[in-house]
Amino acid sequence: MSVTLTLDEVRDLATRCLMAAGADAANAAAVADTVTKAERDGCTSHGLFRIPGFCLSLASGKVDGAAEPTVETLAPGVLRVDNRRGLASRGLEVAMPPLIEAARAQGIAAAALVNSHHHSALWPEVEMIADAGLVGLALTASKSAVAPAGGTKPLFGTDPMAFAWPRPDGRPPLVFDQASSALARGEIMIAERDGHTLPEGIGVDSEGNPTTDPGAILKGAQLAFGGYKGAALALMIELLSGALIGQPTGFEATAQDNNDGGPVTNGELLIAMDPARFGDVDDAAARGEALFAEILKQEGTRLPSDRRFQNRARDPHPGTEVPDALMEKLQGLAGG
Amino acid sequence: MSVTLTLDEVRDLATRCLMAAGADAANAAAVADTVTKAERDGCTSHGLFRIPGFCLSLASGKVDGAAEPTVETLAPGVLRVDNRRGLASRGLEVAMPPLIEAARAQGIAAAALVNSHHHSALWPEVEMIADAGLVGLALTASKSAVAPAGGTKPLFGTDPMAFAWPRPDGRPPLVFDQASSALARGEIMIAERDGHTLPEGIGVDSEGNPTTDPGAILKGAQLAFGGYKGAALALMIELLSGALIGQPTGFEATAQDNNDGGPVTNGELLIAMDPARFGDVDDAAARGEALFAEILKQEGTRLPSDRRFQNRARDPHPGTEVPDALMEKLQGLAGG
Repeated sequence: MSVTLTLDEVRDLATRCLMAAGADAANAAAVADTVTKAERDGCTSHGLFRIPGFCLSLASGKVDGAAEPTVETLAPGVLRVDNRRGLASRGLEVAMPPLIEAARAQGIAAAALVNSHHHSALWPEVEMIADAGLVGLALTASKSAVAPAGGTKPLFGTDPMAFAWPRPDGRPPLVFDQASSALARGEIMIAERDGHTLPEGIGVDSEGNPTTDPGAILKGAQLAFGGYKGAALALMIELLSGALIGQPTGFEATAQDNNDGGPVTNGELLIAMDPARFGDVDDAAARGEALFAEILKQEGTRLPSDRRFQNRARDPHPGTEVPDALMEKLQGLAGG
Repeated sequence: MSVTLTLDEVRDLATRCLMAAGADAANAAAVADTVTKAERDGCTSHGLFRIPGFCLSLASGKVDGAAEPTVETLAPGVLRVDNRRGLASRGLEVAMPPLIEAARAQGIAAAALVNSHHHSALWPEVEMIADAGLVGLALTASKSAVAPAGGTKPLFGTDPMAFAWPRPDGRPPLVFDQASSALARGEIMIAERDGHTLPEGIGVDSEGNPTTDPGAILKGAQLAFGGYKGAALALMIELLSGALIGQPTGFEATAQDNNDGGPVTNGELLIAMDPARFGDVDDAAARGEALFAEILKQEGTRLPSDRRFQNRARDPHPGTEVPDALMEKLQGLAGG
């Protein structure tokens, strides 16, 4: 049982929920924009589904819905964006114009988003960077879930990393956004709910033994993708989006969490590079396109994010299906 | 049957071989330094073992042993180091001081090494960056060996990525240097030579079928580590160290190779970040150390590169064992 909403209706409903929970217009608009993009692209797990949690965080007072992020230039190529306990989407929106300007001026620039909450998918921000014709990278550490290489207890977050490469002729950018864990935590929860087992290599039980039981993994630890190599990436992501920018790494965020259900504090590191300052921008684009064509020559391949861009390109866009139970909850949050 | 050489003897022998093959003093010294570091750390696959190949490349004329790399500032945060067909070690040595200076001035900086040959391990260069107190990243694309996600034919190189994080109190940096392939090509060759089978997930045969036969994988394609996530990283590495800096991606390098046994042209992208320009350098170091301690609390863990640093720290250093056959070849190359 579900209702179909247009993307305008998604944006409107999300905005009303957030404002009813105490967000000001700027914060509500930024978060509603991210949620609407997710529904547009068929990523329902980052869409309206997230709104009740955001509203709880706002109501708890842990997150400031009227936060006004501030931007400080620490070095010609380094910005610090203090999100002042606000939701990530607003801080990222504020970070974007000065980051893009700095990357164009310096060739490469970084923005550290600090004192921020509820970082989720990272593709919206790397796509914003690519939409400006720049190459984008984004990294963030989350609460302990993944064991280090050789270990058996949660330590690293699921620690995603996203990358975007701008493409010519109006094509959407080449984008990937992937957790350092072998599987997203939400997928493990869904497998537990549905009574499915998982493949080997996803996680270990609380004794550290390999298991395919999702419930045992949720009580034990997830594993990084690709063994020690994925764990090394998680370690890098924790250092760059935590230690380097004065924000908690995964185990620090976990230790600081008072378990009231509110979010922990996250940092996020964005890096932008301007191909025009690295050499010949047309040559770079042509080499990228040649590489993508060569990939697609092989049967069975597709480019990362392909399905998301196909969902986006539906014309007319069919809107999104919202389950009745979620719709009822959202209408309640929006004040009827 | 082997002989033991001191590290000074390694350096001297490597230098003599390279100069006899046409390298000038500066190029020979840079390459001999990398080779000596590898032998010091017990990485024999990047040590003297490589010298005969370098000498062949120099003798073929494909590589210029007297190349004088030039440095151009493309933007305040971007350097282009043209290695002018020289060996990578010399170009990296020339790139390092201006890269470090730019990172300290801008907070973050990149150096694109172009028209360069024989990139191998990337940890020497990221360690040089970390030795200056900076965070280092290095990426390079190599000839096609790895299938794209879903595909079955070689396309990406084994495409390594290295990372270094400076540590306080005279400790060696936190370093990893890992290929995007599930296994290094050399390991597959050794398994073939020794008649061993490999685990699942390392590669496919020339029909695209999964196989554990190393010979079949060498004729077929290697796979990325961790499936599609490792393949996405390989794609990023090809874009950043190839397309972005006007250098061949893996399949372009393969297409341009005239198969005379000489090396292909590679690009390499270095990125350096100065923790002192991202905030509080002592806080960053303390958070890093706390994270490393938390990893090591778990039984069975170690930090990446640990074994290499243990080999380095042997006091007195025992030198290195050189097999008689290699020693004989090297003495021949050095002119007796």
